[in-house]
Amino acid sequence: MFKKFTHSVKVYYEDTDFGGVVYYANYLKYLERARSESLYSLGLSNKKLLKDYKSLIIVRSCHVDYIKPAFFEDILLIESQVKSMSNTSITMNQIVKRKETIITKAEIVLVIVNDKGKPVRIPKILKDSFK
Amino acid sequence: MFKKFTHSVKVYYEDTDFGGVVYYANYLKYLERARSESLYSLGLSNKKLLKDYKSLIIVRSCHVDYIKPAFFEDILLIESQVKSMSNTSITMNQIVKRKETIITKAEIVLVIVNDKGKPVRIPKILKDSFK
Amino acid sequence: MFKKFTHSVKVYYEDTDFGGVVYYANYLKYLERARSESLYSLGLSNKKLLKDYKSLIIVRSCHVDYIKPAFFEDILLIESQVKSMSNTSITMNQIVKRKETIITKAEIVLVIVNDKGKPVRIPKILKDSFK
Amino acid sequence: MFKKFTHSVKVYYEDTDFGGVVYYANYLKYLERARSESLYSLGLSNKKLLKDYKSLIIVRSCHVDYIKPAFFEDILLIESQVKSMSNTSITMNQIVKRKETIITKAEIVLVIVNDKGKPVRIPKILKDSFK
Repeated sequence: MFKKFTHSVKVYYEDTDFGGVVYYANYLKYLERARSESLYSLGLSNKKLLKDYKSLIIVRSCHVDYIKPAFFEDILLIESQVKSMSNTSITMNQIVKRKETIITKAEIVLVIVNDKGKPVRIPKILKDSFK
Repeated sequence: MFKKFTHSVKVYYEDTDFGGVVYYANYLKYLERARSESLYSLGLSNKKLLKDYKSLIIVRSCHVDYIKPAFFEDILLIESQVKSMSNTSITMNQIVKRKETIITKAEIVLVIVNDKGKPVRIPKILKDSFK
Repeated sequence: MFKKFTHSVKVYYEDTDFGGVVYYANYLKYLERARSESLYSLGLSNKKLLKDYKSLIIVRSCHVDYIKPAFFEDILLIESQVKSMSNTSITMNQIVKRKETIITKAEIVLVIVNDKGKPVRIPKILKDSFK
Repeated sequence: MFKKFTHSVKVYYEDTDFGGVVYYANYLKYLERARSESLYSLGLSNKKLLKDYKSLIIVRSCHVDYIKPAFFEDILLIESQVKSMSNTSITMNQIVKRKETIITKAEIVLVIVNDKGKPVRIPKILKDSFK
């Protein structure tokens, strides 16, 4: 079983579009912030991974379901949890909620690359931290 | 068989991130621009659909595979093609290329909502236009 | 003398560019978030101003000095303070800092428009709140 | 007298906000695209300047007047012209128009830094090209 992380964001002008709702690409920003905050809460960071482990986490694929719109000045909660891990990839489930309403559901596949962009094994510290 | 549309974008500073490559959320902007340009090439536009048909195209889900990175000042080509249509949704395949290299592949499910955000049947003009 | 507001942001991937630093346009997002948070701290919000006072705050002009770069995963503090107010416009000073280092300085002129986009007098509640 | 450059952009969903107009920070993206396109039209590019001259153009300050709103699906023209040059900085005027309507006016001060971020003299090729 993997740890569950939560991160909260507020919807600002920059996030909305002409339709009055959060622009669909901007959820990926929220999801990335939430993943970065998970690292921070574990005592890690992208910079640390790069410096100490020559490792960069990159997104291999994402699947996002847009279920309900989110609106200007909404406060949203992002729940993130590793679903599965192999030696070279991490699959993460992320849910964006406004209180109990599910706004967006995402499944993100992450891989680790070295400082030359080549896929490498997930550093042990990262594997252990998510458990 | 459905029409294939192409749209070209250049990678500017705004599109890149600290990793030196196009930020993963920004591909969704490129994909949206390409879909909008498809409409324009058909003599339609989002504004026209809203004004004349009280219809707004929204993204129900997206699946994006990030295959290769794209870099600052790259010129990218986005190919867009309807894969299938039902009465209420359109599934579109979109591929981002740099010359012959596939950078990103996406499958986007679109639905049509009215000006109150309620899903409605796809306007006939839109259905016919994509063929 | 006017109240001083502070708001903190973290630099995520989305904020950086190929140069490894915060992209110059993105500081305007931080500044806007900080202004919105000032409203919230006063018990106001953009939505409330629109709903109760038919008023929207828009940016008439901005002057931004980029003094030092900010980097990925930096934590920045934005200080915001009204510099002067007339019947129809508010001039605000905003400073972005990383600890004691000044990153960016901005002077923003705001005006209030009604729901038709026409400039109107600043609502009394807004004028009073900033003092 | 300096050359005048023009670049055209279309307003997509990503550019607009909840107010139905182009979000104020996004004009800085348009302005940057227009400046980059000026370089390209001169046979230069940011990458080339970095590679061949170890030079990066960065924004030292910007002053932007927001005169009229721009709307979804507008086609905008950006006119860019060097106003003055010293040995170490370039001041540029940029105007965003929709047909004959002036939307935004900007004055941007650019400086050149080397690959360590230190200000350096403007490369001769750049100085000569703008004339």
